[in-house]
Amino acid sequence: MESKSNYKEEEPEATMWSQKAWALLSTVRSQSPLIQCITNFVSMDLMANTLLSAGASPAMLHTLEELTDFTPQVHALCVNVGTLSTGWLPAMKLAAELALKSGKPWVLDPVAAGASGFRLKACLELVDLKPTVIRGNGSEIIALAKASVEPTKGVDSSHKSTDAIESAKSLAQASGAIVAVSGAVDIVTDGNRVVGAHNGVAMMTKITATGCSVTALIAAFVSVDQSHVLEATASALSVFGIAGEMGMKMANGPASLRMHLIDSLYGIDEACVLSHAKITSLS
Amino acid sequence: MESKSNYKEEEPEATMWSQKAWALLSTVRSQSPLIQCITNFVSMDLMANTLLSAGASPAMLHTLEELTDFTPQVHALCVNVGTLSTGWLPAMKLAAELALKSGKPWVLDPVAAGASGFRLKACLELVDLKPTVIRGNGSEIIALAKASVEPTKGVDSSHKSTDAIESAKSLAQASGAIVAVSGAVDIVTDGNRVVGAHNGVAMMTKITATGCSVTALIAAFVSVDQSHVLEATASALSVFGIAGEMGMKMANGPASLRMHLIDSLYGIDEACVLSHAKITSLS
Amino acid sequence: MESKSNYKEEEPEATMWSQKAWALLSTVRSQSPLIQCITNFVSMDLMANTLLSAGASPAMLHTLEELTDFTPQVHALCVNVGTLSTGWLPAMKLAAELALKSGKPWVLDPVAAGASGFRLKACLELVDLKPTVIRGNGSEIIALAKASVEPTKGVDSSHKSTDAIESAKSLAQASGAIVAVSGAVDIVTDGNRVVGAHNGVAMMTKITATGCSVTALIAAFVSVDQSHVLEATASALSVFGIAGEMGMKMANGPASLRMHLIDSLYGIDEACVLSHAKITSLS
Repeated sequence: MESKSNYKEEEPEATMWSQKAWALLSTVRSQSPLIQCITNFVSMDLMANTLLSAGASPAMLHTLEELTDFTPQVHALCVNVGTLSTGWLPAMKLAAELALKSGKPWVLDPVAAGASGFRLKACLELVDLKPTVIRGNGSEIIALAKASVEPTKGVDSSHKSTDAIESAKSLAQASGAIVAVSGAVDIVTDGNRVVGAHNGVAMMTKITATGCSVTALIAAFVSVDQSHVLEATASALSVFGIAGEMGMKMANGPASLRMHLIDSLYGIDEACVLSHAKITSLS
Repeated sequence: MESKSNYKEEEPEATMWSQKAWALLSTVRSQSPLIQCITNFVSMDLMANTLLSAGASPAMLHTLEELTDFTPQVHALCVNVGTLSTGWLPAMKLAAELALKSGKPWVLDPVAAGASGFRLKACLELVDLKPTVIRGNGSEIIALAKASVEPTKGVDSSHKSTDAIESAKSLAQASGAIVAVSGAVDIVTDGNRVVGAHNGVAMMTKITATGCSVTALIAAFVSVDQSHVLEATASALSVFGIAGEMGMKMANGPASLRMHLIDSLYGIDEACVLSHAKITSLS
Repeated sequence: MESKSNYKEEEPEATMWSQKAWALLSTVRSQSPLIQCITNFVSMDLMANTLLSAGASPAMLHTLEELTDFTPQVHALCVNVGTLSTGWLPAMKLAAELALKSGKPWVLDPVAAGASGFRLKACLELVDLKPTVIRGNGSEIIALAKASVEPTKGVDSSHKSTDAIESAKSLAQASGAIVAVSGAVDIVTDGNRVVGAHNGVAMMTKITATGCSVTALIAAFVSVDQSHVLEATASALSVFGIAGEMGMKMANGPASLRMHLIDSLYGIDEACVLSHAKITSLS
């Protein structure tokens, strides 16, 4: 009976979260925020299509020479270091600085942060530029929190998201960012509160750039409610996961899942978000 | 009764346009022209697949060091500034010069022309290299025609194509290029004549790189009939739009539309082009 | 009667090949080797998804500054020169040297090798760094074997794979690499033995980056059996081709084939590999 009464106690919170997720998606659709993405070459296509399907407007401009004109006009910035190079790093930093200076949220995706000393150093320098949100997998968040290069599975995680909760909390406290850790359960923390988003399907890890794309979706959600960054982050993770669950019903493998996920993100309605969103307090 | 008699008068013209569109697609399929694309990172995949599905042969070579050997061999060049950088701009210019010198058509896609001073200047310098065709959305063509940086929705248009007709005409007159403006109606002008291609579906704007890809298709169509550039441009826009209309019948959202559009472009036959192409004189 | 008795004689060999192909795919799935890809911008998405669908873990890191930390940790390296530039070439070379030094296999895809003097020189320099496998189309292998720039169809082949057998053998002998030539029949040779993989469908040539992607799959297969490189190469080509055959049953064009191919590669089982693999000795 314990679990049943717990469930009932949680109902108002669950409903609040589902309504928040739907409200944010609706706002993204109606406001169509302009999201600048300085991201890796692998993810550009899926990331742009994720933003378009959610109702946002993506712009993949990345060149140092035009950031001063362009970045202050965008509603949020997404920086992803997946195919990091010395040529792109200065633009990532300047764009982050411009976003910060003009009061626009910016989100960091520290892909494979622990894969090399060069990459770790770059990620730590970006963390110093006060990202609004940092989203990675367990291994990436642990590498950032420990500031250490470690044996790695490349861009895939060798840690569960729940193994990274303490690292996420300490990174959030040290950086001032909301930190999200993707995994079977997506973890979101401000350093004190810990929230779990329980949507999504395992096969999403067999599609390249799903992690990168949900980071961009977080940027879109945060751009329309900057005063509730933790809630917007958890909502974006949940909505993307629901789209994956809906897509999985029609999928025969990773490539059809990718297609149906994007179609579902485009078509998802209020009833679906309210009935499927699973966001809970974990602490 | 007026409209009915107008319709009858237009029939011979409509039939002529449909037959032209089909003849050009057939020629692309049989000649398989080699189209060099120096384009943005986001669009490369869909652009290459668009060209392959239409029967052309894409080549995404972009490096300064090999243009002198390679560009004179291609049948047309497509330059797209979507993810423009100082590193790529000299190659774009040299390739345009080589195309011009060897009598090959080249097509410019001035993505987000008004988004920054750097970008606008680069686009204007490329316009000076005498592109055969310039294709953009309303905001891009207006920015080029006015030579001014303006508040922008990033890569998406904040103007309807029909709002850009006068800008398109003046840009065509000043540059000598055929100018195409994508939108609900695609506009094509040589500065005097104005033609509208009325195919396509709204959901195509929710797929990244459809605009970029139709620019490459224009390059392929123009490459097989350099003496009728306006007609080839309108035909490519119409054929791509028809593929979108066919795809839309099977689509559940932007990602499945993208797939069905490319499948349709591959499979489209004479009867379909003749019955669906809607190209009309607007002046 | 001759052909019938030949067929019976070949049966044990065919069974051996099919079992080998299945064993290697199973090992890739269970070991999930980490494959570094320094590849062209067009192919990154499909290549990463091909590796993920086969059970491998892709990493698209390409920057000179992190190779010393990262490349020795990977299980194989794939280098593809499709969008070659002076900026990327030193990283390609260093990564190849690091793979060689740490005893990891590396695979070269000499895209459009004969398209320019710059590209041919770069490819020949990479061949000097002792790739474990070289996979190209007929025109690319002939250009490398002859070390000559030739009129080209860009990245598409103007030669049949079987026209390139002698070039493949001499390139294998000169370089020490296993050489694979894609085509209607995929050819694999160590300079003496010549094996043919007879799977795949013609429409795969209408999807960009299928050739690039199978090269990455070869890297994954070779990484789990470095003592049988020729067998692993032929097996990867056959398995990818079978996935194409399975996908073709559901496809309506190149874009749906691409989706179904990846889904099929993910789902392919032992019975399917054993019944469909067609690998034979050609000498």
